[in-house]
Amino acid sequence: MTRLAILGPGLLGGSIALAARRAGGFHVAAWARRPEAVAEMKKGNFADVASSDLGAVVKGADLVVLCVPIGAMGKLAQQIVPLLESHAIVTDVGSVKGPVVEELRAIFAKSGRFVGSHPMAGSEQTGLAAARTELFDGAVCIVTPDEHTDPGAVVAVHEFWQALGARALELSPSEHDDIVALISHFPHLLAATLVNVVGQKNAAAFDFSGPGFRDTTRVASGPPAMWTEILHSNRAAVRASAEAMIEKLREIITLLDHDAPMTEFLTQAKARRDLLRQSKTPHA
Amino acid sequence: MTRLAILGPGLLGGSIALAARRAGGFHVAAWARRPEAVAEMKKGNFADVASSDLGAVVKGADLVVLCVPIGAMGKLAQQIVPLLESHAIVTDVGSVKGPVVEELRAIFAKSGRFVGSHPMAGSEQTGLAAARTELFDGAVCIVTPDEHTDPGAVVAVHEFWQALGARALELSPSEHDDIVALISHFPHLLAATLVNVVGQKNAAAFDFSGPGFRDTTRVASGPPAMWTEILHSNRAAVRASAEAMIEKLREIITLLDHDAPMTEFLTQAKARRDLLRQSKTPHA
Repeated sequence: MTRLAILGPGLLGGSIALAARRAGGFHVAAWARRPEAVAEMKKGNFADVASSDLGAVVKGADLVVLCVPIGAMGKLAQQIVPLLESHAIVTDVGSVKGPVVEELRAIFAKSGRFVGSHPMAGSEQTGLAAARTELFDGAVCIVTPDEHTDPGAVVAVHEFWQALGARALELSPSEHDDIVALISHFPHLLAATLVNVVGQKNAAAFDFSGPGFRDTTRVASGPPAMWTEILHSNRAAVRASAEAMIEKLREIITLLDHDAPMTEFLTQAKARRDLLRQSKTPHA
Repeated sequence: MTRLAILGPGLLGGSIALAARRAGGFHVAAWARRPEAVAEMKKGNFADVASSDLGAVVKGADLVVLCVPIGAMGKLAQQIVPLLESHAIVTDVGSVKGPVVEELRAIFAKSGRFVGSHPMAGSEQTGLAAARTELFDGAVCIVTPDEHTDPGAVVAVHEFWQALGARALELSPSEHDDIVALISHFPHLLAATLVNVVGQKNAAAFDFSGPGFRDTTRVASGPPAMWTEILHSNRAAVRASAEAMIEKLREIITLLDHDAPMTEFLTQAKARRDLLRQSKTPHA
């Protein structure tokens, strides 16, 4: 039985709790700062123990998962360090890894073995009410050890995400941040920008939109404060993606009068996008 | 009983046939050029009559729907003009309306009453196999009369789309093209460009992508030749959208270091995008 402690159960923490209970072999303890969140966890039977007492939840844990916003990770980590047993493994679900891993590695140098994680399975929805048992099924979870990370802890964190239904893949923290800027952070900013460009040019246009526009802009409904923090924390890579996009758009505008190269451009995009559809299969 | 003739049944034409049969009150005849497509329609019981004989399908029709690519509309229209009865109403499902309406209005000046339509209910999938009875349920269908259009025909086309489950809204052909460039044509180009930027910067990134990237780029799986034709036919408005987007992206990059205005920008986008989610309700 693995003693699992989940700190900060919103969409991700709540889904981890549900998926761990489905997997079996876990004693699930969950901590939330707000009493209402604890009551909601108890009501939804998310965990074996739900409490706002950090000590009660963390004590004796084999694996601790930090599920608070990235700006709140450091402070929470400082609080749990004195409570951890020496064998405990700590991971997080932060969307940016470079600065988070650097900060948490230093804190957990004193106690616990830290490995960063980032499950690519969010949603524009937030909070415990949006949590789902199958959120991680077939999703990629990026595990981000660096040269200081305990190899046994890396294996354990891989196995943990696989038990929850995810496919664990490994990148260094900086590789992670570059890649995730391209496929998540910048696309979020792009979707929000598209919505605001439409709003600025002709707000009546929204009334005519179809399922394509809804899908293209879905992520723009995500929580603004959380995304501001993510974009800021990974701003160099996001800026590089945005500049590459601007350059490519400038080039593509010139193809609007040239059908053959435009078809070639769209064919290349379709071929790449069609591969994604195939990779949707769980555990593929 | 309305005698409905559907010419060129792929995703849209096939779905119109299925939705008309569900609605009742229609005799559905469908024409396809290729014998295999006719066989597929017969096998799937899409229509009361399926044939590659244009005369047999169009003769006696009260309402004809042109569902071929926009570049093929003119030639098909020329072929059916001599076959139409004088009371017949003709509409189309082309994604660009200015040039299509101009071309078809001139052709049908001789016979038939033409009104442009554009159901905002495509998909990245194509062909009869992707057709669905409920494709138009709750979808917007833009009806695009101009100053020459017969008012009775406009009413009849509105009623037709409503019978199929859509919400019919009206715009002039040029208003349509400006609005649809913003919410469909340019977003298509944007999604394809995002995919190709990722492919160019780091193709390995695709392997790590989650549901957000899949949704943001879904439309990029659409048929390249069809989209080249659409983008070309509406290139002035698409270019204007692209230029507005480039300008806004340049502005937004500077907010990556400024959290309060970035949060405000994302909050504005979220508020607008959240309204779309509500408008998803059928017949709202």
